[in-house]
Amino acid sequence: MSEYQQLANAIRALSMDAVQKANSGHPGAPLGMADMAEALWRGFLRHNPKNPKWANRDRFILSNGHASMLIYSLLHLTGYDLTIEDLQQFRQLDSKTPGHPEYGEVPGVETTTGPLGQGLGNSVGFALAEAMLAKEFNRDGFNIVDHYTYVFMGDGCLMEGISHEACSLAGTLGLGKLIALYDSNHISIDGDVKNWFGDDTAERFKAYHWQVQEVDGHDGAAIREAIKKAQEDKDHPSIIICHTTIGKGAPNKQGTSASHGAPLGDEEIAATRKALGWDYPPFEIPEDIYNKWSAVEAGAKAEQEWNDLFAKYKAQYPELASEFERRMSGELPVDLAAKAKAWAQSLQDNPAKLATRKAGQNALDFFGALLPELAGGSADLAPSNLTMNKASVSVLPHEFAGNYIHWGVREFGMCAAMNGMLLHGGFRPYGGTFLIFSEYARNAIRMAALMKIPTLFVFTHDSIGVGEDGPTHEPIEQTATLRLVPNLDTWRPCDQVETAVAWLQMVERKCGPSDIVLTRQGLEQMPRTSQQIADIAKGGYILKDCDGTPDLIYIATGSEVALAFHAAEELAKEGKKVRVVSMPCCEEFDRQSAEYKEQVLPAAVRARVAIEAGSTTTWYKYVGLDGKVLGLDHYGASAPAAKLFERYGFTVENAVAVGKAALAK
Amino acid sequence: MSEYQQLANAIRALSMDAVQKANSGHPGAPLGMADMAEALWRGFLRHNPKNPKWANRDRFILSNGHASMLIYSLLHLTGYDLTIEDLQQFRQLDSKTPGHPEYGEVPGVETTTGPLGQGLGNSVGFALAEAMLAKEFNRDGFNIVDHYTYVFMGDGCLMEGISHEACSLAGTLGLGKLIALYDSNHISIDGDVKNWFGDDTAERFKAYHWQVQEVDGHDGAAIREAIKKAQEDKDHPSIIICHTTIGKGAPNKQGTSASHGAPLGDEEIAATRKALGWDYPPFEIPEDIYNKWSAVEAGAKAEQEWNDLFAKYKAQYPELASEFERRMSGELPVDLAAKAKAWAQSLQDNPAKLATRKAGQNALDFFGALLPELAGGSADLAPSNLTMNKASVSVLPHEFAGNYIHWGVREFGMCAAMNGMLLHGGFRPYGGTFLIFSEYARNAIRMAALMKIPTLFVFTHDSIGVGEDGPTHEPIEQTATLRLVPNLDTWRPCDQVETAVAWLQMVERKCGPSDIVLTRQGLEQMPRTSQQIADIAKGGYILKDCDGTPDLIYIATGSEVALAFHAAEELAKEGKKVRVVSMPCCEEFDRQSAEYKEQVLPAAVRARVAIEAGSTTTWYKYVGLDGKVLGLDHYGASAPAAKLFERYGFTVENAVAVGKAALAK
Repeated sequence: MSEYQQLANAIRALSMDAVQKANSGHPGAPLGMADMAEALWRGFLRHNPKNPKWANRDRFILSNGHASMLIYSLLHLTGYDLTIEDLQQFRQLDSKTPGHPEYGEVPGVETTTGPLGQGLGNSVGFALAEAMLAKEFNRDGFNIVDHYTYVFMGDGCLMEGISHEACSLAGTLGLGKLIALYDSNHISIDGDVKNWFGDDTAERFKAYHWQVQEVDGHDGAAIREAIKKAQEDKDHPSIIICHTTIGKGAPNKQGTSASHGAPLGDEEIAATRKALGWDYPPFEIPEDIYNKWSAVEAGAKAEQEWNDLFAKYKAQYPELASEFERRMSGELPVDLAAKAKAWAQSLQDNPAKLATRKAGQNALDFFGALLPELAGGSADLAPSNLTMNKASVSVLPHEFAGNYIHWGVREFGMCAAMNGMLLHGGFRPYGGTFLIFSEYARNAIRMAALMKIPTLFVFTHDSIGVGEDGPTHEPIEQTATLRLVPNLDTWRPCDQVETAVAWLQMVERKCGPSDIVLTRQGLEQMPRTSQQIADIAKGGYILKDCDGTPDLIYIATGSEVALAFHAAEELAKEGKKVRVVSMPCCEEFDRQSAEYKEQVLPAAVRARVAIEAGSTTTWYKYVGLDGKVLGLDHYGASAPAAKLFERYGFTVENAVAVGKAALAK
Repeated sequence: MSEYQQLANAIRALSMDAVQKANSGHPGAPLGMADMAEALWRGFLRHNPKNPKWANRDRFILSNGHASMLIYSLLHLTGYDLTIEDLQQFRQLDSKTPGHPEYGEVPGVETTTGPLGQGLGNSVGFALAEAMLAKEFNRDGFNIVDHYTYVFMGDGCLMEGISHEACSLAGTLGLGKLIALYDSNHISIDGDVKNWFGDDTAERFKAYHWQVQEVDGHDGAAIREAIKKAQEDKDHPSIIICHTTIGKGAPNKQGTSASHGAPLGDEEIAATRKALGWDYPPFEIPEDIYNKWSAVEAGAKAEQEWNDLFAKYKAQYPELASEFERRMSGELPVDLAAKAKAWAQSLQDNPAKLATRKAGQNALDFFGALLPELAGGSADLAPSNLTMNKASVSVLPHEFAGNYIHWGVREFGMCAAMNGMLLHGGFRPYGGTFLIFSEYARNAIRMAALMKIPTLFVFTHDSIGVGEDGPTHEPIEQTATLRLVPNLDTWRPCDQVETAVAWLQMVERKCGPSDIVLTRQGLEQMPRTSQQIADIAKGGYILKDCDGTPDLIYIATGSEVALAFHAAEELAKEGKKVRVVSMPCCEEFDRQSAEYKEQVLPAAVRARVAIEAGSTTTWYKYVGLDGKVLGLDHYGASAPAAKLFERYGFTVENAVAVGKAALAK
């Protein structure tokens, strides 16, 4: 047995034993990829186990995240803060070794994976961020940003559509430092993939203009040779198709789906130990094997070399170096909030009727000038989403000196790659599409929320205001569904001032993603005091009030705020005491103090009407059983927008009628 | 000018004039694809404009649905019930010519398109349905089912990930009668696609094992030759890459994104008329051009020939023929409901604790034996979703004599293809994946709901009950978001009896899709009277009651029903009057009469507690401002399921405490 194999067997042993102890998990993939991992991690990966956040480390992404014991084994063996006891707690409550690798929970895990294909999508973002950041910050003799992005992936990742989106774009742009190792084991849960996945993957990736190699995925020397060649090609991303056996080493289960998603069982584990020549008890690794795996010394040295280089860079380019440090830390310029608030006030003082997508572009002009980390893009809708700003410079094939990415018609790939860029560090990516097509990207948005990373999503054409394009393009339930994603903030501003404040809140948020839903059509600007401008940031606030306790409260968002405002005016004429609450962000409002919420929506006032041109469900939480919701629980139609608003009752007249009905209840 | 071109110009004129009149729409694609359409529709398409529902017609799908004026022009010119006045009403309220082609609204439109790539996904389902139905019903000399499926698609469709999923599967299975014509015009909204879509599409499709041809997309003769060759290859799907100019004929805008999504303008339209040699006023087509386009006579003849063949088939195979008619009509066997109800009663009488995914498989065993149209599958999770039933026979490459499709890890492609199978007729497709991955397919589920077609979606592993796989795989908000999709029924049954009734309701539904969310873990069976079994179909019903008006009502679904039941028992011991409402389908409950709903949830009883291991938002509609929701608005964790339910308060003890809090309010 070669030394390579014995070292790979340490991964196999830890993986099968941890899965067995948990009585849950996926042994097949770690056993199958152990040789690939040994070759990459011991032969090439530049990383420092004692500082998983070293800026210039190589990034490693396990796109087939169910193989989590592979990465946990690697992190443990190379010297990260992940003990053997942690491995023994695999898949247990509050452990550092959850069922799938989780960013933020496990040191050394670059991104949360499990939903297939998305790690690959992330990896394109990582590689793109590296290329863009290198162009921005590197100077002659100072390759401050210079690392590879490696991704492991399986048959499942490559069946998923996102693999096409991500890899087509990576090939077009020429992301030469992206290196993918494909665990081609031909087995998925239903069995041999030949019956449902007959692709010639080598040809497919050649069609994407990738460098393509094929190797025996259990031949450590051959894999090393291939990785070297992949590194040498700077103009194309590389795929190394590693022909492997799932569950490699388990004599009776290898090569079958029986090894995929369940513990091997004590008997098969014993047989595997024998077949591998691995004589050690569970969770025991001999010292010499630990020593050979350890990356502690080499990692410290690699980082130190970079630190020395960075010190010289800092001496020569002090401003650039401190900007690089700021960018990688995610800190905003200190004066940003003050400037933005002054700008919002100036917008209030200079009212304009405009579509909030245009107000959004104005906000991007404002923030883009102050935040070079704002890297924008859209899924081939730049002129519709209005995501380009005055500071935008397009990233083009092999030309990474830019900050605007034309993602193509690839919503899911875009959002996953944006998450990768964010995770890489140095960027605050924002990306746009029509709100309806947020659905194509939905799980990537959720992954940002789960990872608690502040990716920014811009969704325009946010209601039946879409008009002539009709029901396929008209969001009904989308805003409501976004509000349901835990830890995602959804903003639906009603005019340019709320849009400006929303953008500031989104940019300032650190612990999770935000999306902003914007209109196609022009919206009237609402009057506000300075205090009211400040209150926008609370997510919900009194936009228009009455004397004393209101008889009726209207709650509205976005394009329906003006409607509520004018309905309240009408009812006031009739002597009703009516309050209007603008609620651009329910999540932010819900986080306010009980006192503030009671002040805005007094428990005693039960005559409440929520107005939003979309699903009503969101609003029962605020209007209860006695209130009313003027919304839409059916699809729209193809017609000029004004006709649709009228058809579906979004008129002042009807808003007044619904208000009266609530008062009468 | 060739006759072909002049005939294509009729499409160009109608398209540009209708877009101009609407002052909204997409002229570039219909002008660019006019020659492709002329070649296919006049040279090959077998269809009968006077009977758009003829069972054996060729199917034509416009995947790039924004080119809607192309298909409206074709339908009008060939003789469908779509008048020139209809074309003049393009994109107007209540017209038959909405902004994107809508199934059910426009005669001759086979599927609603617009969301890019999904028409292509549908087309794979159409072709698969044809192949499977042919195997089942054709007999020697009687090719009752024998038609092609043609799909037009653009750059956007081919950038979308779903194109990979659909085309990889089509190539693997060898859907030889699927013929795709790719409008390769190199222009998308952001500009020339070379900067974001550099694929060698010919090589890509060769990698999928498609027949690949490339032609000048404005050369009618060349396109005809290519379609002929595509028809000749029975073993592989075909792609004809048609190199075209977007906006072909508009002298100043063709070849640019300026022609894509806005009217050409009067001046450019005049110039286009001149360039095309088209001297007729808007919406005027010369009689001889109408005559050359008309498919009325040929279509009637084609159908008559088939009708004659079918009459002979019916004489020889009467049972098969009437089964074919039943299958194509979508009618269920008359005795199905009675049998299913008796079966549900028998399950009630023989209680069992089992996971509802297993109960779902039992339901599939039951219905599968009675309904050969139930064509199942899953996205590579057959052993986990338990979607295979006793009657399942796998469809394999080039072997279509089956009823179970291994979709591979392709949720979006699966759901879009299922919609295509349903639309083709002859099948009631159902397909499974983990509930969390419904997100990958979300817009295809919505398209079924928008089209009002009864596709069936099976989602298992429906909560933190997933356990060790952790938060990436644990649904929190997914059930709630599905409930928000208009016209989609979402069932979350609590035991084998509710699962059986839910499946009957789903199978009987004709006007829209249903999904069923099922547990991984075993659930206790609830006691019920026969009346209660019947009431399950109402979506919500009193599962456990008290004497007189309740003090407190628990509302629960799925795995939380038993919890509510036992909490109610505890409170009853303390003398409280407690009702338990099981609510497996909110949509069905909402459709009940006001009287029934008042009977189940009396307005006067405000102490209400909803329990569901997921987003709370759904429930405020039912519990109001005075009630409580015991739910989950944050992500789960990786741990054995029982630990998670305990950690997050899904215990009888806590359910009792929340009930008391509601009572105290």
